[in-house]
Amino acid sequence: MKAFILEKKGVLATRDIDIQESVGPDDVKIAPKSIGICGSDIHYYQHGNIGDFVVNEPMVLGHEASGEIIEVGSNVKDLKVGDRVCMEPGIPEAGSRAVFEGHYNLDPAVRFWATPPIHGCMRETVVHPASLTFKLPENVSYDEGVLVEPLSIGIYSAQKACIKPGDVAVVLGAGTIGLVTALAALGAGCSQVIICDYKQGKLDFVNKHYSDLMIRTVNPANEDPLAVVAEITGNWGADILFEASGSPAAILSCMDYVCPAGTVVFVGMPPESAAPVDIVKAQVKEITMKTIFRYANVYDRAIRSIASGSVNVKPLVTARYTFDKAVEAYDFASTTPDDQVKIIIEM
Amino acid sequence: MKAFILEKKGVLATRDIDIQESVGPDDVKIAPKSIGICGSDIHYYQHGNIGDFVVNEPMVLGHEASGEIIEVGSNVKDLKVGDRVCMEPGIPEAGSRAVFEGHYNLDPAVRFWATPPIHGCMRETVVHPASLTFKLPENVSYDEGVLVEPLSIGIYSAQKACIKPGDVAVVLGAGTIGLVTALAALGAGCSQVIICDYKQGKLDFVNKHYSDLMIRTVNPANEDPLAVVAEITGNWGADILFEASGSPAAILSCMDYVCPAGTVVFVGMPPESAAPVDIVKAQVKEITMKTIFRYANVYDRAIRSIASGSVNVKPLVTARYTFDKAVEAYDFASTTPDDQVKIIIEM
Amino acid sequence: MKAFILEKKGVLATRDIDIQESVGPDDVKIAPKSIGICGSDIHYYQHGNIGDFVVNEPMVLGHEASGEIIEVGSNVKDLKVGDRVCMEPGIPEAGSRAVFEGHYNLDPAVRFWATPPIHGCMRETVVHPASLTFKLPENVSYDEGVLVEPLSIGIYSAQKACIKPGDVAVVLGAGTIGLVTALAALGAGCSQVIICDYKQGKLDFVNKHYSDLMIRTVNPANEDPLAVVAEITGNWGADILFEASGSPAAILSCMDYVCPAGTVVFVGMPPESAAPVDIVKAQVKEITMKTIFRYANVYDRAIRSIASGSVNVKPLVTARYTFDKAVEAYDFASTTPDDQVKIIIEM
Amino acid sequence: MKAFILEKKGVLATRDIDIQESVGPDDVKIAPKSIGICGSDIHYYQHGNIGDFVVNEPMVLGHEASGEIIEVGSNVKDLKVGDRVCMEPGIPEAGSRAVFEGHYNLDPAVRFWATPPIHGCMRETVVHPASLTFKLPENVSYDEGVLVEPLSIGIYSAQKACIKPGDVAVVLGAGTIGLVTALAALGAGCSQVIICDYKQGKLDFVNKHYSDLMIRTVNPANEDPLAVVAEITGNWGADILFEASGSPAAILSCMDYVCPAGTVVFVGMPPESAAPVDIVKAQVKEITMKTIFRYANVYDRAIRSIASGSVNVKPLVTARYTFDKAVEAYDFASTTPDDQVKIIIEM
Repeated sequence: MKAFILEKKGVLATRDIDIQESVGPDDVKIAPKSIGICGSDIHYYQHGNIGDFVVNEPMVLGHEASGEIIEVGSNVKDLKVGDRVCMEPGIPEAGSRAVFEGHYNLDPAVRFWATPPIHGCMRETVVHPASLTFKLPENVSYDEGVLVEPLSIGIYSAQKACIKPGDVAVVLGAGTIGLVTALAALGAGCSQVIICDYKQGKLDFVNKHYSDLMIRTVNPANEDPLAVVAEITGNWGADILFEASGSPAAILSCMDYVCPAGTVVFVGMPPESAAPVDIVKAQVKEITMKTIFRYANVYDRAIRSIASGSVNVKPLVTARYTFDKAVEAYDFASTTPDDQVKIIIEM
Repeated sequence: MKAFILEKKGVLATRDIDIQESVGPDDVKIAPKSIGICGSDIHYYQHGNIGDFVVNEPMVLGHEASGEIIEVGSNVKDLKVGDRVCMEPGIPEAGSRAVFEGHYNLDPAVRFWATPPIHGCMRETVVHPASLTFKLPENVSYDEGVLVEPLSIGIYSAQKACIKPGDVAVVLGAGTIGLVTALAALGAGCSQVIICDYKQGKLDFVNKHYSDLMIRTVNPANEDPLAVVAEITGNWGADILFEASGSPAAILSCMDYVCPAGTVVFVGMPPESAAPVDIVKAQVKEITMKTIFRYANVYDRAIRSIASGSVNVKPLVTARYTFDKAVEAYDFASTTPDDQVKIIIEM
Repeated sequence: MKAFILEKKGVLATRDIDIQESVGPDDVKIAPKSIGICGSDIHYYQHGNIGDFVVNEPMVLGHEASGEIIEVGSNVKDLKVGDRVCMEPGIPEAGSRAVFEGHYNLDPAVRFWATPPIHGCMRETVVHPASLTFKLPENVSYDEGVLVEPLSIGIYSAQKACIKPGDVAVVLGAGTIGLVTALAALGAGCSQVIICDYKQGKLDFVNKHYSDLMIRTVNPANEDPLAVVAEITGNWGADILFEASGSPAAILSCMDYVCPAGTVVFVGMPPESAAPVDIVKAQVKEITMKTIFRYANVYDRAIRSIASGSVNVKPLVTARYTFDKAVEAYDFASTTPDDQVKIIIEM
Repeated sequence: MKAFILEKKGVLATRDIDIQESVGPDDVKIAPKSIGICGSDIHYYQHGNIGDFVVNEPMVLGHEASGEIIEVGSNVKDLKVGDRVCMEPGIPEAGSRAVFEGHYNLDPAVRFWATPPIHGCMRETVVHPASLTFKLPENVSYDEGVLVEPLSIGIYSAQKACIKPGDVAVVLGAGTIGLVTALAALGAGCSQVIICDYKQGKLDFVNKHYSDLMIRTVNPANEDPLAVVAEITGNWGADILFEASGSPAAILSCMDYVCPAGTVVFVGMPPESAAPVDIVKAQVKEITMKTIFRYANVYDRAIRSIASGSVNVKPLVTARYTFDKAVEAYDFASTTPDDQVKIIIEM
């Protein structure tokens, strides 16, 4: 079948590939319709690896995807041919300890699309477990279906934070993940989010598209974000901080933003595995630090949040390319323009 | 000073009363501006008691209140004369076990306005601890300040339910408490609320004023609420049920609405202390049942939720009377008209 | 193979039965060594059903079991032939929603041994998923391996209660489940358990075998359990109450025992599905009520608790029968003698 | 009155000091009987400060204390003259936000004994709020009453960790705090604790006095603690790690010990405020990190744990001095001998 393939570091191709997949009794076969470009895709393209995951063989890219069901397995009851769906890209091992404990995303044996050596889904058809394939409501488009994947990270972060109604949250970093986290936090009950980034283009995007939401943008080059938080919270501190930049300086500063008994969620990955954390400041305030790895059990929540309007992801699609222009799309995405959030490939 | 007094069961009067209150170092003195009529006020008026709390002496009514600060104690730093505020009506005992444990609302020694023998605040001035007096933002009116009290019950119920983003909630009962609970649940991250009541007037109010929200009204006289929940949740059940009617039949039905591992919050008080609960159905689904008693630590959250627009309480003020018409207001409220939510007395 | 079969209500037989089971790649085959008699087994024997689960065809009994592995599937890595194991008796459906969410015990499609129409394991061999088969440490006997099953209910109840170190707990009912719950609660950090039962024989058993533990037995026929709790807790109330009797009178009394913000766990099933609960008393104290259904993710915890000595289940084996005397054992168990806890069949 | 005073850095004296304290209506006056030497006391003695807390004026030392009540205020009901008690040393401000929220230990205005400029209690008498004064059961000695303070840190750490029955915990650091944390973790339901320290004397102490408990000591100079944890947990990792050493190298290693979805509690304070934490390893396992600052609401739990025998602190008293030998005791304690845990001054 035709597929979009990372041949090796720096080399992309749209070409035929021989992938034999049979539709098991609990599987469905999907024809992808929209696929997003994720930072991890770009990283594999540019570097040929992410940490220990190395592209040694040609690998189909793509893991943010929506499509149409074209075949269903014999046991599948809740999905049928023609259904519009989006797909959760990580498949855990049935019966594993992590699955039984409810955090299947932490299963060491999980198979995740476009994480070597597992092929992604940017191809004519893909077979997937029905249990990880989610029907899109009529008012949710294929493009929004693609955005369910990154939004799931935001929703999962918000869920981990155990937001209480009316909480004030800070988000450090206004990239795609920072942005979906901010949207999810507001949808999850925060009365106010302060989002900080040095890239003014990212903040301008927020101010342009989300002026109706209680998001206050702060460029630390121009004003002191701690002073903003102090004013908004009456010198008490924010209830929650989402670290979504991965910047070691940001990580070190986290505890300054948060109130006694507050929560920090480390969403962004720092460039080195370890980074300095202000343990004593955390202790004096008894701050809880949480971490997330992808997501679990939130795809349906993300879809409902989009369908109900509690999170509006429509503005996040900032560019679209047809499948035959996919290399061009990747090269554009590789320049990481400040005004781009999600670039979509139409299959 | 002039005050609105329940002389005894069935007898109200606006008259002078001698209340001597000194402003301690941590207190403020407030001139109330708006005061709401609560179901409990009406109950004391009509029955002379609520459970073991009996009106044996004339008692000033009123506990839902906002006003203006006219004097501050020597230690008070965060409030000043002229500030527009609302007041949390229950005062716990400093150093009590319940206070130290963070649930001061459960302190057996709490003194709550207009709960015999404690006078309420429907009078010219009232002295209150600064720590339980909350400044209103400029965009929150005195009337909205009054609604902070009932909304706090909704916010507190929503907080107790540990809502996850995108949850589906059912609210049984569309009275004032059911309504603020539904609004709070949506503000706290629910993607959909189904609210049920046999009084069509209550549902009409919701449909008229909150058509922009994801609230589905159901009159069980006309359609099966379980079928509605099954359809919305794909036969899985609602994540959360708020029982806000106090009806024994509703309490008995709770478990039918909820999904495996779901949560029921008993907000409404049944007429008799005990009511049948379907224990076995709860067990088979491992449902958690929570209860609330008034609220704790949510006044600032409720104010922020109103100020940020995440909860819109403006439509809830359905009638206004001046102080000299307070008896008339109470008599009107006693008829419990279906189209009324909160009746305000202007002081 | 030879098996112990409930032919129909009231009729037991040890006879050959034709059960064809192949060992799948993730399965193991076990030769059971010790099997316990559970109240549910007796109930099926005496009544032919439990609720909607009706014995329409002859059914092998037995679900509390330990044994020796005699064959392993091709994927199985952590178990080998000759291993001494115990088996978790409920098999959920891979990929089901309940499994992904971490409460596989609530999967509507779960297949549980000796719950019609699923055969139990009281037979020569049984095939079981390796993921639900647990190796016994050397210092844990086959009989203790059997007791892992009922202890898991106690452990799971204790875990649900979120016991804090030093908590005081009350257990209503000193039958097998009440007893393992009391032991688990002490092992989980309670500083004191008060266990109540009208059957003095049950209390005598506790006093005889567990005099070294902080268990206070109370026979309500002789002394007021509320007075005992009041004295022990300084009139504050117990932190946790485990209702393990299923008695409606006990269920109705629960809230009286518990402190403000305390927890009630409904472990025992009442005879009718619904039972009166004192909602208002629960509300005034903001009590949380939890329920359990069997258990999930606790088998390894129960085994470790036995192996480490933090829970001593040895005294609970009160009688032993050989396989050929199994009918006799069931008939003895059916008389529910007060001095019996767990009757073991040696295979 | 006679008191033990840190005149300034390096200078101790037992001398008269003029402290005027009146017994308020909610206070009690206590004659201390036993007082422990804490690491913080020694730190003030040697360095004259801990962080921003600087000894600028002579300060009475001592905050781990038990004693006898010699006077009670007019409102005090639960305590009487002659009662044997221990005292929680931090006094929060009534009505503060942190108090209302249930974490009074985080109140910025808390007054903590022997934290400049607040005098400690190593003196003839001390006045204290009755609400922070706890009666000792008959079977708890004054020395054990002293140990309630450090044990409270262990209990609080264990409570924060939300231990589930049968959990396996690692404790890094076998000093006093590491030791009480290990004891508390076992008392709170852990089936096994692995405690690590490079000081063999500390491990020898554990092996000598707590050989009956499931504590495995590991000296990383001799064996690989990760290998020990891997073997005990079947290569899954410990459920909980308590970092009680404050060592940056230990802090950096934390995530290696813990299982997916596990918990790290930072109990020990590193020498510099910040220390490197392996964020990415934490993320890949979704580890939650918690911190503690002193304790809140655990004094009664600690006392009950001692009284019930679930935690045995008796071996921790390793030396005793009379009040007139207090300087000698401090100088001995300053040498931090490996075989010493708690040195007691008899008043």
